[in-house]
Amino acid sequence: MTLERVEQSRLTEITVKALQTYGLSEPDARSTAEILVLADMFGLHTHGVSRVESYGERLDLGGIKASAEMKIEKSALAISKLDGDNGIGPLVGQTALKEAMALAQQTGVGVVFARGSNHFGPISPYAFLAAQQGFASFICSNATTTIAPWGGRDARLGNSPLGFGIPNPGGDPFLLDMALSVVARAKIRQALQQGAAIPSTWATDKEGRPTTDPKAALSGFLMAIGGHKGYGLALVVDLLAGLLSGASYLTRIQSWVDNPEAPQDLGHFFLLIDTARLGGADWLRDRMEDFRGILHDTPAADPAMPVIVPGELELDKYRLAQTSGVEVEKASMEHLLERTAR
Amino acid sequence: MTLERVEQSRLTEITVKALQTYGLSEPDARSTAEILVLADMFGLHTHGVSRVESYGERLDLGGIKASAEMKIEKSALAISKLDGDNGIGPLVGQTALKEAMALAQQTGVGVVFARGSNHFGPISPYAFLAAQQGFASFICSNATTTIAPWGGRDARLGNSPLGFGIPNPGGDPFLLDMALSVVARAKIRQALQQGAAIPSTWATDKEGRPTTDPKAALSGFLMAIGGHKGYGLALVVDLLAGLLSGASYLTRIQSWVDNPEAPQDLGHFFLLIDTARLGGADWLRDRMEDFRGILHDTPAADPAMPVIVPGELELDKYRLAQTSGVEVEKASMEHLLERTAR
Repeated sequence: MTLERVEQSRLTEITVKALQTYGLSEPDARSTAEILVLADMFGLHTHGVSRVESYGERLDLGGIKASAEMKIEKSALAISKLDGDNGIGPLVGQTALKEAMALAQQTGVGVVFARGSNHFGPISPYAFLAAQQGFASFICSNATTTIAPWGGRDARLGNSPLGFGIPNPGGDPFLLDMALSVVARAKIRQALQQGAAIPSTWATDKEGRPTTDPKAALSGFLMAIGGHKGYGLALVVDLLAGLLSGASYLTRIQSWVDNPEAPQDLGHFFLLIDTARLGGADWLRDRMEDFRGILHDTPAADPAMPVIVPGELELDKYRLAQTSGVEVEKASMEHLLERTAR
Repeated sequence: MTLERVEQSRLTEITVKALQTYGLSEPDARSTAEILVLADMFGLHTHGVSRVESYGERLDLGGIKASAEMKIEKSALAISKLDGDNGIGPLVGQTALKEAMALAQQTGVGVVFARGSNHFGPISPYAFLAAQQGFASFICSNATTTIAPWGGRDARLGNSPLGFGIPNPGGDPFLLDMALSVVARAKIRQALQQGAAIPSTWATDKEGRPTTDPKAALSGFLMAIGGHKGYGLALVVDLLAGLLSGASYLTRIQSWVDNPEAPQDLGHFFLLIDTARLGGADWLRDRMEDFRGILHDTPAADPAMPVIVPGELELDKYRLAQTSGVEVEKASMEHLLERTAR
């Protein structure tokens, strides 16, 4: 993967224009681009503007609607349901985020259940945007099935991402963004290329038996963190984001790879809490800095690897991207240039 | 551990009376007993009526207040803060649960941040009571520090429990109740007694290095599930339950073992969502049964060990306890009898 640095506003404008070539309106393309560019700023290149090409393929095939008509139904003072109408994922995500903010401004808490959606990018950009406005967040999405239930030997649930953000007025927010597999499949592919064995906690073979053979693992299933614990957490994500939202769930979700032209009907869950209702900015900042300090002061097992707090690495990259340009994959940039040169 | 079966109403009454001998009022003792008896009904004996003795010791020492004056402050339409006034944990938990239900009845969502609390038992009884009333829940608590941050070699965070419940009208709710360590220390002690090595993912030695030696592990630190992922999730629990609630957090929490007479100032987080706002009972039941069916139909890696859904084992035990009596530790029962014979 070759990376190059592109000035943030230039990357944003070219991403907006490229998304417009797939039929998105300018405001929809801009809202989508904000999430993808933030992903690259955080160093999450697999979920950044590189997605324009894969989202674009599905827009071309009609698997994603370029002009979705999203509908918000108010379920209660603090709950809305969002029908994404099979729109592009980050746009559904941004719409859900804004609605959750509006609800939380009224009642202190906002919950939005989104359905009829697609892959919405990584979670940390949403959690970051929420934290900047003073909202603590719990955000999750279901996903195409790749994981077997604990003790099973068939993929029945997704490696669903979940994330959390806690604001820190004037300082770095806490940001956690993770999936529930021990590792991504890419790490198993890497081991295979290097001829190395993998730990028996990473994956099972196709019979559902834990394996140390990367080849057997690649025809088997990813394992969730903590065995039955991660299995349970992955189910929670699908229950909140899929089942309660009215979206598809488990094996009812269409595979993007096998059926790129079919709507996936993914679901997302957004929970926002207005921290300003809990105490003043000074109160929160003092506690967040004390919390962070206690963790940073922990003696490290390896002095070369100090203890860090989730979100720090991403926010360091974000600041560097602001001043020195956003790192982006050369191949992604070429695709954007090619689309916009037409 | 020797278990005996005691009729549910008899166990409840004797637990209420035993708690009263430590100074609790009858209604407070009854509210506390409900959680502890449910724990035993679910088979969670380490968190059931066996706790009367250890909670009682701290009540006697003044480490827990027998006549706490809890205060609820409304922060927003959907948020309340609860000052537990150092009351007995399950009573603070029940008060938080009821307040969250009242909020969720109004706005669809209820969030309660509790501070000034103590060990509140397991989470599944709260999630079960919420699910019976149609509320989906996310409940967590912080705890005395026992885990080192990822890459650190000093205990700075608790093995904090978190749990989720999703109602299933007329059927079994989904219930997940877990801590974030790979295993409990008891499992490492067991390996030591058997002279067995432990997997390198369970614990570190006191220098923070992963170890397979149970003896080194017992003088070291428990590891969180998924390494840095479980570390991040444990921090989320402490941020929600401790930092945002106004309670203590991380190493600011007093150890119950070292300072039994000092208030711990633990915090809890209760989030309830009224699922009746999302769809009718039939809609939810159909989806929950379909969800469960997809998981149960998964071919098992070991045919003798079919795939299960979190909460099923506990609810089977619950039903058996209703008809055949609650399994309870003989030693716990003796303590209850001894207290109430005075």
